[in-house]
Amino acid sequence: MSLVITGTVAFDAIETPFGKTDRIVGGAATYAGLAASYFYDKVKIVSVVGDDFGQEEISILENHGINVDGLQIKKGEKSFFWAGKYHTDMNSRDTLATELNVLADFDPLIPESYQDCEFLLLGNLTPQIQQTTIERLRNKPKLVVLDTMNFWMDVALDDLKQVLTKVDVLTINDAEARQLSGEYSLVKAAKKILTMGPKYLIIKKGEHGALLFGEDQIFSAPALPLAEVFDPTGAGDTFAGGFIGYLAKVGTINFNNMKNAIIYGSALASFCVEKFGTRGLEDLSAEKIAKRVLEFVSLSSFVIEQ
Amino acid sequence: MSLVITGTVAFDAIETPFGKTDRIVGGAATYAGLAASYFYDKVKIVSVVGDDFGQEEISILENHGINVDGLQIKKGEKSFFWAGKYHTDMNSRDTLATELNVLADFDPLIPESYQDCEFLLLGNLTPQIQQTTIERLRNKPKLVVLDTMNFWMDVALDDLKQVLTKVDVLTINDAEARQLSGEYSLVKAAKKILTMGPKYLIIKKGEHGALLFGEDQIFSAPALPLAEVFDPTGAGDTFAGGFIGYLAKVGTINFNNMKNAIIYGSALASFCVEKFGTRGLEDLSAEKIAKRVLEFVSLSSFVIEQ
Repeated sequence: MSLVITGTVAFDAIETPFGKTDRIVGGAATYAGLAASYFYDKVKIVSVVGDDFGQEEISILENHGINVDGLQIKKGEKSFFWAGKYHTDMNSRDTLATELNVLADFDPLIPESYQDCEFLLLGNLTPQIQQTTIERLRNKPKLVVLDTMNFWMDVALDDLKQVLTKVDVLTINDAEARQLSGEYSLVKAAKKILTMGPKYLIIKKGEHGALLFGEDQIFSAPALPLAEVFDPTGAGDTFAGGFIGYLAKVGTINFNNMKNAIIYGSALASFCVEKFGTRGLEDLSAEKIAKRVLEFVSLSSFVIEQ
Repeated sequence: MSLVITGTVAFDAIETPFGKTDRIVGGAATYAGLAASYFYDKVKIVSVVGDDFGQEEISILENHGINVDGLQIKKGEKSFFWAGKYHTDMNSRDTLATELNVLADFDPLIPESYQDCEFLLLGNLTPQIQQTTIERLRNKPKLVVLDTMNFWMDVALDDLKQVLTKVDVLTINDAEARQLSGEYSLVKAAKKILTMGPKYLIIKKGEHGALLFGEDQIFSAPALPLAEVFDPTGAGDTFAGGFIGYLAKVGTINFNNMKNAIIYGSALASFCVEKFGTRGLEDLSAEKIAKRVLEFVSLSSFVIEQ
């Protein structure tokens, strides 16, 4: 049994008010894979890079026990590249460059060794690639989580709605939930989105935490107030990877486990934003994660005497 | 012993996407007083109205056992009037009219019967009136809570900083915390503001809940996701009134009681926004409030197995 993650593996150049990087390893599948690897030891990646992505870069994944049999390396081509600059508030950013390169005609090939997939994370990519990934798995996974963004709602809404009928959990932000549903109230938005296919909806609100809707329940998860956010890149992917990694570890899908999975995903995301790129995710430990999760507990717990 | 609330008692005309009212009773002290009255039976108001504010209007307060000896009625003058229109998102609004009337030269006279004040809420008013109220109490109250807004930071920052040295708890929203401190990170903002006088800072984030800083701890309170928000007017005042009313009831000031006070304040605010004006606060009961508080518990509780 395994956890398969489809998403980008790429190079990023990032500028924030705190500093600047040239070309560092990034991509949704990279962040999600690293996060998931702290919970589950059979993480497998489906992605594509060019031959500018060398063994040194691949080692970042392999060092965490991530299976890269499904990482296609295109000879003579270049990896996906994104450059962005964050504003002072760290909540908004300008994209300075998007070079699709190998991503332009990415065909998500599933190695035979991935057919034991029990947990599937479809990282933010074209809905068509997400759909193809699902179709190529012979057995229906126990849990399919899909992450997407407003861009796909703008340019490929029909494809997105099609793939949504096949997923169990959708993760989007509050503006995207409003866009997808046409409802301003998040309660109404969630109600509508839960008729589109997903059984659970996670609304990511960045510094304001996250909301989980499903099984006629709502859970509000806090975000850890941080003194410094160095680089928000990959926080959403890290959250999704930690979320599904935790669920793969516990094995049982229910609302309570989902709540804890959101806390663990949020904890991993809080490490992610403390350093540039993937560095905050590279040398964590079960102890560090447990300690961070306890901060979430003390942050949000209260006892009402009846 | 008593809970004294200084703030406006006024008429509002409100328009939201759900409807419109002509002149209804409003004002910070009205909302805060009604909310506090569900927890504590010695609530006393310091405010001023004109003689357009008749017995029918005063009854709204008196029916909740609120002492109005400190409500000055100015013969031949008109009450403070505010008219506003909320946008579709309900988070932003246009002010259509602000008629200060009696508020222009409001002198907060403290009746002798109010000198037993143990809990003091200084509702959103000029910092000078807030300062005068404190000075006119012969005994230092056990707890002073001050609510303010960006307007006073713009036009009376020195006065505001002066009165802040005399208060225990400051309640403002996230943008105001950033403005007052000059720090974007709320953690850094709180650290700075807690050197200005208050021992506790509550940052109100509307639909995203609230943060409490103090005693080197942080508490993140959720907001109840609501399907419909009919009228957000008075939500912040209601929150502050519920908060201090709960603390007056339990009597002991510590971080844990403050956490619960925030949950009770948020519960009262959630009732407030469900109806126009003060209507959502007019016929609550201990049972209804307890039930609503349980929704906050189930919304935010999770159990991590160590």
